[in-house]
Amino acid sequence: MKIYFAIDVGGTTIKYGIFDEKKNLIDKFFKKTIYYNKNAERQTLNDILSGIEEWCSEKKISLKDIVGIGIAVPGPVADNEVKTLVNINWKHKYDVVSNIKNRFGSKVKVIIANDANAALYGEYIKTLKGKYKNVCFITLGTGIGGGILLNGKLLEGKTGVCGELGHIIVDKSENAMECNCGNKGCLETIASGVGIVNVYKNLYLSDKSNDDEIGICGRKVKVNELNAKLIIDAAKENDEKAFKVLDIAFEYLANLMVDLVYVIEPDVFLIGGGISNGGNIILDIIKKHFVGKNKLTKKQPKIMLAKLKNDAGIYGAFALVANS
Amino acid sequence: MKIYFAIDVGGTTIKYGIFDEKKNLIDKFFKKTIYYNKNAERQTLNDILSGIEEWCSEKKISLKDIVGIGIAVPGPVADNEVKTLVNINWKHKYDVVSNIKNRFGSKVKVIIANDANAALYGEYIKTLKGKYKNVCFITLGTGIGGGILLNGKLLEGKTGVCGELGHIIVDKSENAMECNCGNKGCLETIASGVGIVNVYKNLYLSDKSNDDEIGICGRKVKVNELNAKLIIDAAKENDEKAFKVLDIAFEYLANLMVDLVYVIEPDVFLIGGGISNGGNIILDIIKKHFVGKNKLTKKQPKIMLAKLKNDAGIYGAFALVANS
Repeated sequence: MKIYFAIDVGGTTIKYGIFDEKKNLIDKFFKKTIYYNKNAERQTLNDILSGIEEWCSEKKISLKDIVGIGIAVPGPVADNEVKTLVNINWKHKYDVVSNIKNRFGSKVKVIIANDANAALYGEYIKTLKGKYKNVCFITLGTGIGGGILLNGKLLEGKTGVCGELGHIIVDKSENAMECNCGNKGCLETIASGVGIVNVYKNLYLSDKSNDDEIGICGRKVKVNELNAKLIIDAAKENDEKAFKVLDIAFEYLANLMVDLVYVIEPDVFLIGGGISNGGNIILDIIKKHFVGKNKLTKKQPKIMLAKLKNDAGIYGAFALVANS
Repeated sequence: MKIYFAIDVGGTTIKYGIFDEKKNLIDKFFKKTIYYNKNAERQTLNDILSGIEEWCSEKKISLKDIVGIGIAVPGPVADNEVKTLVNINWKHKYDVVSNIKNRFGSKVKVIIANDANAALYGEYIKTLKGKYKNVCFITLGTGIGGGILLNGKLLEGKTGVCGELGHIIVDKSENAMECNCGNKGCLETIASGVGIVNVYKNLYLSDKSNDDEIGICGRKVKVNELNAKLIIDAAKENDEKAFKVLDIAFEYLANLMVDLVYVIEPDVFLIGGGISNGGNIILDIIKKHFVGKNKLTKKQPKIMLAKLKNDAGIYGAFALVANS
């Protein structure tokens, strides 16, 4: 049996999917991501690859049966080369492809992709079934990531920053919030999980300290326990304060989407990430602020929620290496 | 002798370039654009094509020697189909390609492109010599147009609005200026020729009427005679008020370019259009506000002035049809 490994490397877990040649996901397992202070590149890659060997050994499958390995990583990738992965302490250039080929043989196909791009490709193949070839993917999680597919091909850019939509500056006001990237007012500071909490705190809790209790969604929580899910749940229960926060956050997102139509005119905007689990309330607010603003075109791109959730990365990593 | 016609259709003139098979521009001529109230599509296309026949007849060249016709038009084009051309009153769908083939034979290659896209392609082939394959072209004229080339291919989008960068909303404030497109605060209202004059008037002339005289660049002009060239010339002569206007206008442009890096990461931003004739002062202001703002990448795209000026469209229309 010929098999493919699709691996999604995250800050807390490494997720493995094993696919057969008929594109079936035949197994999956996880491994904890270990954070190394020294030689993180070599050590983490070793951890990732050991996982493959352990699975094959346990299942009594020869390493020679591995046709391809697709890896999704949390950082910029260009031309099959990892740039930096700050979340897992990869600061230096490291030739992942050669290292894998040295270990598993030169015939093994290896594809490395940014995790948002891999997830986008997974949704493109599985959810959209390749029907829409121009897709803009926006992942609303703790932060905001994104990916762009044009004519069925992922856009990377020379240094892999295409689709870093979370770091587009949408709030240019004096009191815009500071972003981890070093700028102020990035979309991520407003419409991500952390951003939504920020907006709520700025609007209603500026006089409270972290240990103070507040009431939300029929519960009492401390200010520092407030999270985006609580705010979304409250909005669903018609909490006007919570709804206003989402309305503000997703108006910024929708306005950016309006701008993107005049750059890449996608057929579909696909909204993913943990926040998108909020469902229709998210979609409805985005649509309210999006529809009709692009005066130069009558045809509006569709706006849809992503479907594969946490499996998007391994489906995409598999499809990328299988189609390579 | 086999020849190509490259035609750039503008609101005031139709410009023709005749190229031989060795890519030499062997002749060019102009014809006035006539504005028709009825059947503008049929009548204007007839004018355009008559120009070809007249030239061939005069030069005693058989129409059978025409290998290809490339046409740049002032409006959105997708899949070789003109959408609308509001400047020349084309409001209806019109099958330009079939009409040309009916008249000149089915073997004639016909390519239609948006004029900014054609100009971008001309610069790509002639000025950049195909060296940079990811180019974002921004034309600062009376309005603002643009085009995007990715991996050597023009991006159009399903309805042809890719690259309509002048209509991205950059000023979201209450008192943002109204744009012809129906929105407020589009880049075009600030950084185009008209926009620069608007900014100047808003800053310094709000208490003046159109017939009042003002002093600029050592001259006396009426308020309604003020134009972008005067403001740019004044800024070059160290007029602080004029410089401040350019600084404001091109900071908006530069900020949009910063955003675009996280969408399409171009190798080069190419600045064209009449305003770009201002030269280095324009480039310097843009660079001042652009460099260093994309914190996620160390490699900055280049920023260059376009070179072909008014001939970019015909060079591009030729290259597009010759390479098709």
